[in-house]
Amino acid sequence: MLSLKMRLSIFFVLMGVTAAAGLAQESEAWRSQAIVHVDGSAVARMRGVPVAAVKLGPGFWTERRRVVTEVSIPTLYKEFEERGILDNFRRLAGKKVGRRGPLYTDSDVYKWMEAVAFEVQAGETRNQALLEEAIRIVSAAQEESGYLNTRYSLEGLGERHKNMLHGHELYCLGHLLQAGVAWYRATGKRDLMEVGIRFVRYLQERFGPGKEALFDGHPEIELALVELYRTTGDRSFLDFAGYFLNSDSRLKGRISARDLVYTYTGKPFTERTQMEGHAVRAGYAASGATDYYLETGDRAYRETLEKLWLDLASSKVYITGGIGSRQTGEAFGEAFELPNQLAYTESCAAIANFFWNWRMLAATGDARHADLLERALYNGINSGLSLDGRLYCYRNPLELSGNPNDRIRNPWYDTTCCPPNLQRVLASLPGYLFGVTDAGIAVHLYHTATLNWRLKDGVAVEVRQETEYPRAGVVKLVVNPERETVFELALRIPGWSEKTEVLVNGQRESDVRAGRYHGIRRPWRAGDQVELRLNLDVRHTLADPRVRDNVGKVAVERGPVVYCLEGVDQMPGVEAHMLALDLRGSAGAAVTASGASVGGLPVLEHRAVDLADEPVGLYSTRPAKRAWKPAAARLSPYFTFANRGFTPMQVWIPYIE
Amino acid sequence: MLSLKMRLSIFFVLMGVTAAAGLAQESEAWRSQAIVHVDGSAVARMRGVPVAAVKLGPGFWTERRRVVTEVSIPTLYKEFEERGILDNFRRLAGKKVGRRGPLYTDSDVYKWMEAVAFEVQAGETRNQALLEEAIRIVSAAQEESGYLNTRYSLEGLGERHKNMLHGHELYCLGHLLQAGVAWYRATGKRDLMEVGIRFVRYLQERFGPGKEALFDGHPEIELALVELYRTTGDRSFLDFAGYFLNSDSRLKGRISARDLVYTYTGKPFTERTQMEGHAVRAGYAASGATDYYLETGDRAYRETLEKLWLDLASSKVYITGGIGSRQTGEAFGEAFELPNQLAYTESCAAIANFFWNWRMLAATGDARHADLLERALYNGINSGLSLDGRLYCYRNPLELSGNPNDRIRNPWYDTTCCPPNLQRVLASLPGYLFGVTDAGIAVHLYHTATLNWRLKDGVAVEVRQETEYPRAGVVKLVVNPERETVFELALRIPGWSEKTEVLVNGQRESDVRAGRYHGIRRPWRAGDQVELRLNLDVRHTLADPRVRDNVGKVAVERGPVVYCLEGVDQMPGVEAHMLALDLRGSAGAAVTASGASVGGLPVLEHRAVDLADEPVGLYSTRPAKRAWKPAAARLSPYFTFANRGFTPMQVWIPYIE
Repeated sequence: MLSLKMRLSIFFVLMGVTAAAGLAQESEAWRSQAIVHVDGSAVARMRGVPVAAVKLGPGFWTERRRVVTEVSIPTLYKEFEERGILDNFRRLAGKKVGRRGPLYTDSDVYKWMEAVAFEVQAGETRNQALLEEAIRIVSAAQEESGYLNTRYSLEGLGERHKNMLHGHELYCLGHLLQAGVAWYRATGKRDLMEVGIRFVRYLQERFGPGKEALFDGHPEIELALVELYRTTGDRSFLDFAGYFLNSDSRLKGRISARDLVYTYTGKPFTERTQMEGHAVRAGYAASGATDYYLETGDRAYRETLEKLWLDLASSKVYITGGIGSRQTGEAFGEAFELPNQLAYTESCAAIANFFWNWRMLAATGDARHADLLERALYNGINSGLSLDGRLYCYRNPLELSGNPNDRIRNPWYDTTCCPPNLQRVLASLPGYLFGVTDAGIAVHLYHTATLNWRLKDGVAVEVRQETEYPRAGVVKLVVNPERETVFELALRIPGWSEKTEVLVNGQRESDVRAGRYHGIRRPWRAGDQVELRLNLDVRHTLADPRVRDNVGKVAVERGPVVYCLEGVDQMPGVEAHMLALDLRGSAGAAVTASGASVGGLPVLEHRAVDLADEPVGLYSTRPAKRAWKPAAARLSPYFTFANRGFTPMQVWIPYIE
Repeated sequence: MLSLKMRLSIFFVLMGVTAAAGLAQESEAWRSQAIVHVDGSAVARMRGVPVAAVKLGPGFWTERRRVVTEVSIPTLYKEFEERGILDNFRRLAGKKVGRRGPLYTDSDVYKWMEAVAFEVQAGETRNQALLEEAIRIVSAAQEESGYLNTRYSLEGLGERHKNMLHGHELYCLGHLLQAGVAWYRATGKRDLMEVGIRFVRYLQERFGPGKEALFDGHPEIELALVELYRTTGDRSFLDFAGYFLNSDSRLKGRISARDLVYTYTGKPFTERTQMEGHAVRAGYAASGATDYYLETGDRAYRETLEKLWLDLASSKVYITGGIGSRQTGEAFGEAFELPNQLAYTESCAAIANFFWNWRMLAATGDARHADLLERALYNGINSGLSLDGRLYCYRNPLELSGNPNDRIRNPWYDTTCCPPNLQRVLASLPGYLFGVTDAGIAVHLYHTATLNWRLKDGVAVEVRQETEYPRAGVVKLVVNPERETVFELALRIPGWSEKTEVLVNGQRESDVRAGRYHGIRRPWRAGDQVELRLNLDVRHTLADPRVRDNVGKVAVERGPVVYCLEGVDQMPGVEAHMLALDLRGSAGAAVTASGASVGGLPVLEHRAVDLADEPVGLYSTRPAKRAWKPAAARLSPYFTFANRGFTPMQVWIPYIE
């Protein structure tokens, strides 16, 4: 049985294939499409809602999104102009300048465009004119043939399609497609999407089974092509994604073992057994493969994805949701190789992790994926953008020595993939709060917000959240159906929230368990109230002992937020690296609010001991009786690190017990 | 007042300068020269004895030296032949082959030659014929001009003296000089030394004050030139060493800031404030500077050396005596940057540390330097040579995951600096056991051995050590002067040996303190006995908390030997990385002998807990009550790691208390 909504979607999709562009544009299909639009999937367990269906109210993410709109997006556009990144396109339309920047600069512009398109989807039009200008610049650069890449045109023409392994040619196209789809979903305008489609057609004419072999070297086009299929209904796009994921068998033996690992391409995705190689590539490949599974239902993909996800979650992800341990190759390490100071943890990799888990949540409905994406969002992604929106992290290490030469936050990188990637995630955020199940509505992330939705039986429902989360743990929900109707409201109970309470119109729910969706199926009437009381007690988290860097240390977490010990917060005369948390006695008494706050969240004061007096010399024999000097350690949210000068920082903190 | 011996030495040295080579060869000066021969120094507090003055008896180092003689030295010579490293010399005498290997291969041959020369000094002539062959090959390669370097001759001629920064031209000469001096001290033959001297003369004619500017880029020639001065008495060699150490002022501004750090050359040594850059370069530079101080008494050098040594000992040396934390640039890290798994700790760097501390001991008489050199010798150097003498470590990390791909022990390296360096240290070892002070004789290192010496008043004395050290802590010394005579026998009480006992003819000495030389001044008669009882109780060693990798971990040491936890030793079913040492209760009861031994030393069994049951998942909330499962951890000497297959290994081990 297909819901009306789904039937309508399919209708519009079919319309899109057969009708003229103008006709499809007049249809309102674009209004109903979620960020990952799986309404046509036969296997999806969780569907999304369009960004426009959710209005965020005041709160944590609204403040973060405000600096993106007011500061990050306009200043990055200026950087593009000043550094010739937009001129790279203009020169293809005749402007006499040289090409500047590394070979993948086109993609940075496309990601920025996608970010602005998401803002427009969310009703924020402040940067729309800039985006429209960018669309004109990009569109004017396209060749008659449909080809579009500033690196492999003019003097670079001879290298076109020659460097599949490292050339980022199709990677750039993937981002163009995502920008085009987001712009279409913001406005119904197909212009930018059509630019991308023309380039895809160009490729489809030349490459593929029976034609020349092609592969991408940096996954990204796969998820873009599946989304393009979802948007247009053209199955050739899905098949083309499958062509890349399955890898052209003629490539066999032509790619080195090292590159097969590094690029996470060049052999069938379903032959993968672990997360390895370049973390962003692997994460995007897994995202694209999940999209492909969602649309094809191919069990082999599902099995590979489950295996890879377990490999990641059990041994290769940082507590911040960051992934990619090694600088060399920006790569995954071995299982449990998760060094803190040397953590590479590129912002883009945490984002890839977020994207993949969103898709896995769609595929499985399993709250583990929501837990992990929330972890990445609040910590390893959120850390990538400075509090004022002007600076970005490329790396997000879990420990810093406080050396200003580390230059961990910068307004620009030569490889500036992370800044627009961070922008597009934050701009699209309203689209990640709620979900749709066969039984009703799910709430994934908590924040003051209003969802306006139509159930599959057509009944309009408003769901309102009011909360100070993650500052406080209480979330008040009001459910307003246009008329009384039975459906399930499923609340995500985060894995970390033991002893969560849920009250429906004041009545306590039973069997509320952490790490699951708590479904409340009942006849809902306008004004019905649900109160969710999440447990924000500070947690002391241990790592598997095989994570060698974390032995003898704990991390401090509060709700979804990982805390850190940063020099800037400590009392005068206390050296951050000389503190050990004192876990003797009751956990509750160990932590108090310091009264200060940073990044909108409380700075915690934790009972500690100062180790500075104890050791004599670099190495000393452990005394039979250890005399600890009481002290207090101040902890602040990890994502705010290095926003207030350069001081030592650590997520994993020594302790005594 | 100069002793007769010293006066004789000076006489022979003066002879050497004025007399023909043949005449000097007939003199016996070469027989009296220690490895670092500071008898002419006005500031030395501790002098050496010739290698030939000490005969090692059976024991720990004799077994290690045996494999060097029987296996390492002959097989490395074979490698040199097979890989064209000797042919590189032969081609300069006309052999028609191409040059092979990296640009510094000459030095590898010279270090090997020095090793064999030390063996001959010690009375071991098994490899002497090979050395004599090598001397012929090297000598025949020298140009008429005196120049000798296989890389910068023939087709490389155009690059001669052009790449001072990275060319290793003078570095190779330094090793040639050291080999020549060692061969002279073994046999009185000046032939190889004269080859080196001719090259030095070639340089002195062309470079230096008033001539062209020169610098070396890889310190080594400095200490070689000072030793050449000590051997020949030619002060121009000392001045030339000073020229390199002071750095030609014309170089100012011509070397990048990065290279000034990396090469540890290019600016006056006395402007250095910390150990930094390439660890071997910095260690050799400091060794050469200490030699220079010893012969000139220049206070500015002494002050710089004290500062640098404190920097090293307080924040930049591993517990194994290894130095150099970073792979990038084979370099020192920041203070307290001492990662375990990523430790670079090149064998050559530990050797440089050993060399430097031997010279600092000569300069200061301070037992701290003997402690540190013994630490490096038993651990970070000793680990570099496999138990069977066939394989070498380049890196000596303090933790391994057990991955065989790490390939940590190899028979050959393209850059094969470490193998012959290890050989020359072990071959020369008898020369490091005893020392000479103004007051008498010092014992630095304990091993069954006999010293035959003549006091400065001419009285012959035999000092015999009998011990199983480091297996056992009792050292029995017998003092046999040819007639009753008053002098001081100074026994080094290692810094780690608290509660050491010393008995002289059964009478207990008072005020025996760890970390000092315990002087026993008395009239000694033949057959006088001294018993030293070192405390070999197992020690649990903590690191300064600023060493982030070692927080929450202890190292286990027994005497001079650092232990490690290696997978191969554990009971079936116990994973090495899942063990934590149990330090609750009395330390004595925590450790027992396992009955097994490896590398000649006991495998220890340590009370422990198994962490495998406790954690659930990669990250888990710390339980209020932790239930430890009792277990036993088996610990073996660090230097034996990866001799019995590839299993996880760690020096710094988690613990509970």
